[in-house]
Amino acid sequence: MTKTIILKNRPEGKPSTSNFEFVEQDSELTIKDGEILLKAAYVSVDPYLRGRMSDAKSYVPPFKLDEPVHSGVIAKVVASKNDNFSEGDYVSGMLNWQTQQVSNGEGLTKVDSSRAPLSAYLGILGMTGLTAYCGLTEIGKPKEGETLVVSGAAGAVGSVVGQIGKILGLRVIGIAGTDEKVELLKSKFGFDEGINYNTTENMQAAIAKAAPNGVDIYFDNVGGPISDAVLVNINQFARIIICGAISVYNSTEVPKSLSVQPFLVKNSALMQGFIVSNYAAKFPEAVKALSGWLSEDKLTYSETIVEGFDNIPQAFIDLFDGKNKGKMVVKI
Amino acid sequence: MTKTIILKNRPEGKPSTSNFEFVEQDSELTIKDGEILLKAAYVSVDPYLRGRMSDAKSYVPPFKLDEPVHSGVIAKVVASKNDNFSEGDYVSGMLNWQTQQVSNGEGLTKVDSSRAPLSAYLGILGMTGLTAYCGLTEIGKPKEGETLVVSGAAGAVGSVVGQIGKILGLRVIGIAGTDEKVELLKSKFGFDEGINYNTTENMQAAIAKAAPNGVDIYFDNVGGPISDAVLVNINQFARIIICGAISVYNSTEVPKSLSVQPFLVKNSALMQGFIVSNYAAKFPEAVKALSGWLSEDKLTYSETIVEGFDNIPQAFIDLFDGKNKGKMVVKI
Repeated sequence: MTKTIILKNRPEGKPSTSNFEFVEQDSELTIKDGEILLKAAYVSVDPYLRGRMSDAKSYVPPFKLDEPVHSGVIAKVVASKNDNFSEGDYVSGMLNWQTQQVSNGEGLTKVDSSRAPLSAYLGILGMTGLTAYCGLTEIGKPKEGETLVVSGAAGAVGSVVGQIGKILGLRVIGIAGTDEKVELLKSKFGFDEGINYNTTENMQAAIAKAAPNGVDIYFDNVGGPISDAVLVNINQFARIIICGAISVYNSTEVPKSLSVQPFLVKNSALMQGFIVSNYAAKFPEAVKALSGWLSEDKLTYSETIVEGFDNIPQAFIDLFDGKNKGKMVVKI
Repeated sequence: MTKTIILKNRPEGKPSTSNFEFVEQDSELTIKDGEILLKAAYVSVDPYLRGRMSDAKSYVPPFKLDEPVHSGVIAKVVASKNDNFSEGDYVSGMLNWQTQQVSNGEGLTKVDSSRAPLSAYLGILGMTGLTAYCGLTEIGKPKEGETLVVSGAAGAVGSVVGQIGKILGLRVIGIAGTDEKVELLKSKFGFDEGINYNTTENMQAAIAKAAPNGVDIYFDNVGGPISDAVLVNINQFARIIICGAISVYNSTEVPKSLSVQPFLVKNSALMQGFIVSNYAAKFPEAVKALSGWLSEDKLTYSETIVEGFDNIPQAFIDLFDGKNKGKMVVKI
């Protein structure tokens, strides 16, 4: 039996399980020449998927209604009529939220389960790590001694950004939503300072205090009032990487915040939207650097692994309540 | 007698004449070896000066209270004990709002009144033209066939930006505040389309209509709701040059507008604050291009020339009511 999760209707505001539907199919999947049969092993759930569930204009077309949702997946090859793949191989790619599926192998990369745990290929050695590395280096252009602020710092991308920042010699300040996460930033990920935005009354002052020399780079995963408070503290020639805006993804109204323009012009500062897929040319360099740091124990990562195919929608929804520490992955 | 305009107190909201004070000094100015005596001929008034009148953190230190205001000035050398300057020369530089002043010549450039009218050196061949050229080319990176939107389009910088856009093969849409200005954009400056933001109910729709292929470059002089309406229409990889935010310079509250972050991330778009002084290395190229186009009649410019030293403060204040067409200059 094959189970598939389809998008039943588009979320308004925060997604709910009723936006998804499970479809079961009893007939056995068969493969033709050139095809492989895949069994899902790990499914990545990511905030950016929220954007694809809306039908607003975006950099990728929206998910279609009544069709399978897809995201980064690690799958096992269980049958192969394709010379590039053998039974037992594990592959990584953009695949459907489906227990089993047929592929012609296009866009799939073999992953080595002996080099790193399979789930790492959805995280630190996958889109998460690439996003952190390429966003920070290509837009952030860090120079030793500068100050980096990361929002969503305990999240999958944020925690890696902060660690790379430390490796590159920056002062790193992380913003997160619980004392526990803030503690983790400092004890596990080596951030210099952490700020809990849920218990801090004056974020602008807290950032000023944590960044006495001002903010040179801001790696922004959240948008909204947290980013407004950072913006007020930027230095001349600051670089702001807009990697996500999770605080407003579920807005049903057009979100308003601080006018950024006066701050950018006053500081000759740059703010740029970052989508990792635009930086494919950098991936080999990024993977080499990340694997190297990983093997030297300079880099660590957190995962929240939820078990069970049926829990994919809820795991996705939980991202918006910050229930994950680090990369959220569903083990099938 | 020498008259000087000093900053008496800092404007709250829109500047008023009461922020300034005229000081008269009867004693004759004398010069020492190496110095020159200058008589002001033309004084430039510019929106950016509003920023320097506040004591907020900025890229240049604020004007000091009870000291002369200064801006771009064309002055005549009326006496010289400096080998680089002769009596009768005209020079351009950042000088005080003063009928006469003494200088050691530092930071002054001689200008040739036979090549272009003196006031042009405060405009099309001065900061205005350099701002338009460097902002559009360095941040905008225009490619033939793209669509450019300019706000404050009938202003000094905006009207030059639009014309350079046409020379470089762009579709150019200008936003201005009166039907007369919009007409001028098309008839005098060759813009493809003009939009009057004061009479247009749905700016977002009007921009979408004028830019059927979306907006690739936005040269922003105003900020605020006009910019919000443009932002909704940007294309993937759009470049937004933040040259000014005149709509919010006089805000006494922290201005709120559309959250730009989701639009930037969705479109991998770039937004960058532009200050012309950071691009000095480009000035020779810019002046060469601008003079060339000027002499080929590919470029034209508007000036609003106000007469009389005593009218400098009012001319400056009038900028915020859009009373100028093109560069606002005071002839002494």
